[in-house]
Amino acid sequence: MEFQLDHAKDILRRTPATLKQLLHGLPDEWIVSNEGPDTWSPFDVLGHLIHGEETDWIPRAKTILEDGESRSFTPFDRFAMFEISKGRSLHELLTTFEQLRVESLQQLEEMNVTPELLAKRGMHPELGAVTLAELLATWVVHDLSHVAQIVRAMSKQYRQEVGPWQAYLPILSK
Amino acid sequence: MEFQLDHAKDILRRTPATLKQLLHGLPDEWIVSNEGPDTWSPFDVLGHLIHGEETDWIPRAKTILEDGESRSFTPFDRFAMFEISKGRSLHELLTTFEQLRVESLQQLEEMNVTPELLAKRGMHPELGAVTLAELLATWVVHDLSHVAQIVRAMSKQYRQEVGPWQAYLPILSK
Repeated sequence: MEFQLDHAKDILRRTPATLKQLLHGLPDEWIVSNEGPDTWSPFDVLGHLIHGEETDWIPRAKTILEDGESRSFTPFDRFAMFEISKGRSLHELLTTFEQLRVESLQQLEEMNVTPELLAKRGMHPELGAVTLAELLATWVVHDLSHVAQIVRAMSKQYRQEVGPWQAYLPILSK
Repeated sequence: MEFQLDHAKDILRRTPATLKQLLHGLPDEWIVSNEGPDTWSPFDVLGHLIHGEETDWIPRAKTILEDGESRSFTPFDRFAMFEISKGRSLHELLTTFEQLRVESLQQLEEMNVTPELLAKRGMHPELGAVTLAELLATWVVHDLSHVAQIVRAMSKQYRQEVGPWQAYLPILSK
């Protein structure tokens, strides 16, 4: 499937509501349990998504448009959310993510991204040259992959509870 | 996390709305694309979930309560949805799943499941003895695992589009 800006926005604009539908009002056990040591709970993932809105996607898109390959992106701190989320409720995180995503999409709109701009290159500190289209496609896949992570973490809370069915549920051993 | 009927219902009742939020109104490319030969698209998964409501979860719960281990469950046809979904729109499938899930949960309510009944055993045709609690926990994990499958199938449509970021996105190679 070829990258199309409209297709990407179709996904990006619905992720906050999908997560709200999936998580809002659930008992804490579903929200704060992770997959084991050094893994993330749904609560942790929300904080990570918020941090992405604040420091990753739109800021990097701007860097590409303004500086091209001449300035590397600021490295993204994948663990910053542990500080960010401290003492906040899931409801607050869901609402914050929703607001930030609306703002991000508004900023994307204002960039008036043309096919030429989609092909413009920036410099990733580790991966080297990347295009704006690649950044935006990554944003989409990043959203989807964290939805997958959240439901996987939730599934694993019932790893023992499914009994012999464990053999039919590969998600429990991923 | 120990199985609790209320916790399970908390997940089961929200899956249709989560999927609606995730999928309703998306361009067809996101809906009908799969992960390659012999894999399922989001559209296929919806049909499979519908078939589960019709023939798997509540019917098996009834078999356990009525026949215990004396009668094996009817084997579940994991490919029946290809016939079921033919010619139907995603909107129809989402609505059908939503209605069937409401009915399933209503039927579950009417079973007045007690802790004693949760421990009651039935006979799986391949796995042997299983309890009602295990069946219900499996229903929950089955929902979550198909949400994961749907977002994975969607992600993979951008496998090429993310360029070098592919290295950072394990979901694309699962």
